Amino acid sequence: MPVTAAFDRPYDLASFSGAIAGIPVIAEPLQVRLKSRDFFWYSPLLKDALGDKQAELVVCPRDEADVVRVAAAAARFRVPITPRGGGTGNYGQAVPLAGGIVLDMTGLDAIERVEPGVIRVQAGAIMENIDTALRPAGWEQRMHPSTKRTATIGGFVAGGSGGIGSITYGGLRELGNVLAARIVTAEPEPRVLELRDADALAINHAYGTTGIITALEMPLAPLWPWLDLVVATDSFAQAVHLGYRAALADGIVKKLLTPLAWPVPGYFRHFKSEFPAGRSCLIAMIAEPSLASFKAVVAAEGGEITYCAPTPEGSGARPLYECTWNHTTLHALKVDRRITYLQALYPADRLEASVSEIATQFGEELEPHLEFIRFGGRVTASGLHLIHYSTPERLNEILALHEARGVSIANPHVFTLEDGTRHKRADADQLGFKHRVDPLGLLNPGKMRSFVPAGR
Amino acid sequence: MPVTAAFDRPYDLASFSGAIAGIPVIAEPLQVRLKSRDFFWYSPLLKDALGDKQAELVVCPRDEADVVRVAAAAARFRVPITPRGGGTGNYGQAVPLAGGIVLDMTGLDAIERVEPGVIRVQAGAIMENIDTALRPAGWEQRMHPSTKRTATIGGFVAGGSGGIGSITYGGLRELGNVLAARIVTAEPEPRVLELRDADALAINHAYGTTGIITALEMPLAPLWPWLDLVVATDSFAQAVHLGYRAALADGIVKKLLTPLAWPVPGYFRHFKSEFPAGRSCLIAMIAEPSLASFKAVVAAEGGEITYCAPTPEGSGARPLYECTWNHTTLHALKVDRRITYLQALYPADRLEASVSEIATQFGEELEPHLEFIRFGGRVTASGLHLIHYSTPERLNEILALHEARGVSIANPHVFTLEDGTRHKRADADQLGFKHRVDPLGLLNPGKMRSFVPAGR
Repeated sequence: MPVTAAFDRPYDLASFSGAIAGIPVIAEPLQVRLKSRDFFWYSPLLKDALGDKQAELVVCPRDEADVVRVAAAAARFRVPITPRGGGTGNYGQAVPLAGGIVLDMTGLDAIERVEPGVIRVQAGAIMENIDTALRPAGWEQRMHPSTKRTATIGGFVAGGSGGIGSITYGGLRELGNVLAARIVTAEPEPRVLELRDADALAINHAYGTTGIITALEMPLAPLWPWLDLVVATDSFAQAVHLGYRAALADGIVKKLLTPLAWPVPGYFRHFKSEFPAGRSCLIAMIAEPSLASFKAVVAAEGGEITYCAPTPEGSGARPLYECTWNHTTLHALKVDRRITYLQALYPADRLEASVSEIATQFGEELEPHLEFIRFGGRVTASGLHLIHYSTPERLNEILALHEARGVSIANPHVFTLEDGTRHKRADADQLGFKHRVDPLGLLNPGKMRSFVPAGR
Repeated sequence: MPVTAAFDRPYDLASFSGAIAGIPVIAEPLQVRLKSRDFFWYSPLLKDALGDKQAELVVCPRDEADVVRVAAAAARFRVPITPRGGGTGNYGQAVPLAGGIVLDMTGLDAIERVEPGVIRVQAGAIMENIDTALRPAGWEQRMHPSTKRTATIGGFVAGGSGGIGSITYGGLRELGNVLAARIVTAEPEPRVLELRDADALAINHAYGTTGIITALEMPLAPLWPWLDLVVATDSFAQAVHLGYRAALADGIVKKLLTPLAWPVPGYFRHFKSEFPAGRSCLIAMIAEPSLASFKAVVAAEGGEITYCAPTPEGSGARPLYECTWNHTTLHALKVDRRITYLQALYPADRLEASVSEIATQFGEELEPHLEFIRFGGRVTASGLHLIHYSTPERLNEILALHEARGVSIANPHVFTLEDGTRHKRADADQLGFKHRVDPLGLLNPGKMRSFVPAGR
């Protein structure tokens, strides 16, 4: 791991601890170890690479002033900082590669203000709690991960790309989906910066390497009464075709369209009756007033609705979105520990043909799972197919075979920003921005591989 | 006009009038003539073809029971019925080709009910009044024509295709954009039918030939505070590119994106200061919370915002949407009576190249005007270019040259449904449906050219 070695520098934790006296910390080894992990173990490769990585201390700021004190002390004593929200990421975003501290941001969870169409919220707020607070005013977040009940908004923006809602609003990187971010720089005298509009892209999906996010201004969507639906189909291709038609139907208000090939629905132990054995399906979230129109699509394409009920809210609820996106993989892993997954982006201009090629190329080794999304203003699909894992070589071969067919891969089996992107390089703006806000390279060191501190 | 001749049959207006005694009528010749016209005179060809067409009587039903009585009497005495809303169409939709009566539907203007996301409203309600009634509850219509202040919802659905709002929701034909229609059949014993979802397509853009629409169930959009904007650009291509980027930006909530080539903005006499002389522009309606994101697109593309203010409401207001869609043509006609227009649909997969080809092919004869829309789930543009008219032959040549370049034409210089469509044929479902609801061919006779009553 040469990238880690570059950050394998001495730091003075004792002096750091003294400098932040009064700010809550966690030093108990098991707790520190738990807070040093996320869901990277979805990947057998990351499991090997990251299994032994951990911080020495967890620091739990209560407000932005605490974050500033932590950043100042860390800069002074050269202590690496790995910011962490709910720890629901899948790429080791929140795993410290070079020791130091994990900065647990969940104490900063206040909603600062709600205006029509806009919320200003602290980075550590749980996304479920945000939606609960918004609901009485008739608003909701535009999109959320399948881990909405435990993920923080800061973690989603820093480590995610999109999710439930992206079929309407596109991903987090689309202009307008993150209105502003407030960050603390990692310097002896930290600055607090407000990044607006295009400037806020500097912190999006940067794993916290480009500043410690303390607050976000996020756009809202008008709240709809959502329905969870399962449509059983005779084939995966039929589920894809049906979902694609619904995805393209701009008159239908929707939040989720997830085609799954059998046996994937069989992994959902808590949802047995909704998913008929042996059948592929489409999971959908449709606004109640659009139900009749969605049913017309289902009828025209020969699907069978086997489940339809309001999306449940609150503790104990089992919303169907917890069978989609990266939760699908989690359910499969609970049944078969040898399963892993990939993340592919299909070409919008030949979507169904491309999906069909991939779905038939690998036999039982690949179990197809799509998520319809908007990407760059066009409807397309992300593939989060399940893979029956054999060797690292074969896994990488599968990824390469996708790319050879024109399907982009965002590799979830690597832990650096560069290796994980479709373009295999750092965002140039983010790299440049990092020099301004983290000149010593203390923020989540090793994740932005191409960054080298100026003085070294 | 052979198509008219087919309906040039004797009818007994005196007996019809006796049979509908008690229902208000207008017989005063000037009023009858005015109510027999719409905005067909945008087209010099339709001006010649339809200038002398008119009804003998205008009948003004007060409720659905009146409509049923009129339909029964008309069937009994073979009187042609041309339903009419606000008379804001441009293709002679409301012009009677075979005399008979104009059925003025504006008396049926009640809002029957508003539910979250859905309104049930009588066909003759003015669309401006519908939005005014919806606003306090936080809803608005998904789309409306530029004539919202005078158009009826029934006329829009029966004679229109889309408009302001179609950049988000697509056109009226998209599944989910008309939830249900209630119609009265033209038979001696009229039936009242409720058409839902896909079945409601039978009355969409059929000019009232497939039943007399008395009520509609329409989906609603959450109300946003809208801003009117003008962005001045250095070229038309720049306005198109900027508008296209905004159209594709799913994170920006928008209702209208209208690129106009200079000298088109020069025709807006009431809006001089907003439109700098000599410059092409983009007119936009953007939701207030998305303004900063839209400004970021404008800045990135080098446009200059010359006007930005809340979309005005109420009498005396001058919303910018009254410079767009078919209102653009109206403003131009007020300056130069030789101007006419066309309606083109550009291919989504090579939009900018295709627009550029057309914009440069005709020199000053064609002044470009686009409307960005979603069509079949894809962002594309409708062209409503202004044409400096010379001869019918040249006009038809211009249309043919569009089609030769792969740009579809919905010809606004013909008055039959078939000739006006991109496919030059009647909708097969509508044609079949007409046999069931208007077996005698009394509804707006001559407009569905391919219909021949079964008994003849």
